[in-house]
Amino acid sequence: MTFERDNIAAMQGYSYGEQPSDNLTIKLNTNESPFPPSPAVQQALTSFDAAKLRIYPNATADPLRDSLAAGHGVTRDNVVMTHGGDEALRLALTTFVTPGAAFGMADPSYSLYPVLAQVQDARVIPVSLNHEWQLPADAAQIWNQQGVELTCIVNPHAPSGRLASAAELDTLAGQLNGLLLIDEAYADFVDPAEQYQSTELLKKHNNILILRTFSKGYGLAGLRLGYLLGNAELIQPVLEKTRDSYNIDHISQALGAAAYADQAYAEHTWAEVRNARAQLVAGLGQLGFTMPPSQTNFLLVTPPTGTSAKRLYQGLKAKKILVRYFDAPGLDDKLRITIGTDEQNQQLIEAIGQLIT
Amino acid sequence: MTFERDNIAAMQGYSYGEQPSDNLTIKLNTNESPFPPSPAVQQALTSFDAAKLRIYPNATADPLRDSLAAGHGVTRDNVVMTHGGDEALRLALTTFVTPGAAFGMADPSYSLYPVLAQVQDARVIPVSLNHEWQLPADAAQIWNQQGVELTCIVNPHAPSGRLASAAELDTLAGQLNGLLLIDEAYADFVDPAEQYQSTELLKKHNNILILRTFSKGYGLAGLRLGYLLGNAELIQPVLEKTRDSYNIDHISQALGAAAYADQAYAEHTWAEVRNARAQLVAGLGQLGFTMPPSQTNFLLVTPPTGTSAKRLYQGLKAKKILVRYFDAPGLDDKLRITIGTDEQNQQLIEAIGQLIT
Repeated sequence: MTFERDNIAAMQGYSYGEQPSDNLTIKLNTNESPFPPSPAVQQALTSFDAAKLRIYPNATADPLRDSLAAGHGVTRDNVVMTHGGDEALRLALTTFVTPGAAFGMADPSYSLYPVLAQVQDARVIPVSLNHEWQLPADAAQIWNQQGVELTCIVNPHAPSGRLASAAELDTLAGQLNGLLLIDEAYADFVDPAEQYQSTELLKKHNNILILRTFSKGYGLAGLRLGYLLGNAELIQPVLEKTRDSYNIDHISQALGAAAYADQAYAEHTWAEVRNARAQLVAGLGQLGFTMPPSQTNFLLVTPPTGTSAKRLYQGLKAKKILVRYFDAPGLDDKLRITIGTDEQNQQLIEAIGQLIT
Repeated sequence: MTFERDNIAAMQGYSYGEQPSDNLTIKLNTNESPFPPSPAVQQALTSFDAAKLRIYPNATADPLRDSLAAGHGVTRDNVVMTHGGDEALRLALTTFVTPGAAFGMADPSYSLYPVLAQVQDARVIPVSLNHEWQLPADAAQIWNQQGVELTCIVNPHAPSGRLASAAELDTLAGQLNGLLLIDEAYADFVDPAEQYQSTELLKKHNNILILRTFSKGYGLAGLRLGYLLGNAELIQPVLEKTRDSYNIDHISQALGAAAYADQAYAEHTWAEVRNARAQLVAGLGQLGFTMPPSQTNFLLVTPPTGTSAKRLYQGLKAKKILVRYFDAPGLDDKLRITIGTDEQNQQLIEAIGQLIT
């Protein structure tokens, strides 16, 4: 006898990127920032009085919501804090997608989306991206026909790194009958010259949620802190009903506030990542690799003709450099490589040079 | 147009106990420990290297699982860490209760249970406790007839403080067709003379989950750390499928390990709470209050005839002492009072003495 629900018994869990415990490995496989969090985070941590942990935290993390609202030009009612971006995605499904109903996503995309949809017993309706990693013109029509209640679009896109313009998202939101969640996990790394700005879309559409996270841009993947932005009508049920009662612990509230207050440090790390990205693009290009333009902290690279992506992944792993290989159609001839420090990127280039000659 | 699911739109969220931000209030309303966590927790916090937060945490918190497994005489496969006990409850519903199916609970009980059941769109089947806060003999029969897939029983019981014996739970588990989750949020405060031990039941029954938390007994309500114990067949889908991928952050893993390693400190605080409980029982008894025997860190007290519980709650609040008043049938003539420090309990007794004369 099994006690699991049928949909849970039938599904597979999420496949993590490898997390080696040794410090010798160069870890370019899970899109973490190459930089530690702001020194203000260490200060907030060291000065935190553990006696405060005795009592429950501020249930809705209001001081942090206020800071983020000010940063994004919205109000507290437009923000709900989540335990990492993953909780934001789960809560969007829990709150807005009826079991048995449909969930929309681009294919390929973040591999957690279909896992969370299966937990909610939702039908996953993938729409394939074209060779430019763009949605086809009839994507919204397909999702609407299938009765999709929520569509998640990661922008900039993972794993390609392509940035869709706010105008593209504006059009999509206007076409969709259901909600559009724009997963901006990597948006901090977009070149400011792109002038990408999605928050304005919240004023025009009542069906948009924007996901942000401290995991990548603030060097805090280990803390688990993210948030959703949206109109108050969408934020309210997540905040007051479906979220776990005290979902952000005391320490995360303090450290998140410290990290967000030090925008100068964060922006400096983003600029460093963009510089390193340009250098890595050039270095890999010289070795015959091709890749779409990336506005993230990773590159989706195709090795030169005659080099197997899988064998290159294995060769790099043997040299203690981890990158991400996806054994999936359309991706199994490519590698996703996180932008590391200049030194790590140089070691990567050297290792690849040795492996492909 | 609303985007919320119908069951979400129809429900009310959880009502928190008040969380005053001033330090002058004596807070006896949300069952926190009166003691700070172990000094080892402060040490672990102060020495934590914030640079570690750059990368994702151990996804399944294995070192912590191993410590807890050793402490409970089980193996790693029998433990899954959760972001507070609340996440453990939610995951039990997500994993084992089909939307539209039924969820069993005692009435009254922890007021979060029906909220989580409504989020899962499960039918709540409450069974009323008798005047001794015991389930009727036909409780399992009622739940089975309604097709209940999961029953949550908090033991010792909240809000009465009554401890059900392991034999009672043994019988109940044997009768139930569905799962039995034993919520032991307050079990650390049980008098060792009771020889209460539920873990042995896991060997006899395949339908038991046991919930534990660091919130009360380890003075870490603000950290959000709990866990489920159960047979591997029940733990596996929670661990590998329904749980958020990285649900326990780096810092919580370190601080939880430090707290659990210092059992001597924790057990000292539990003994102190039991001593204070006995004194508070005596003091309130002298003032004419009655209450069932409590094995928790709170008392459910009935004021002497002629004293309104609600007005006493209001009078105490005016004196900056917060206790919990439940405006619900069977509870609205009572107050739930958390055991505080000796000094706080003395101030409570004095304040009540002034209010009821």
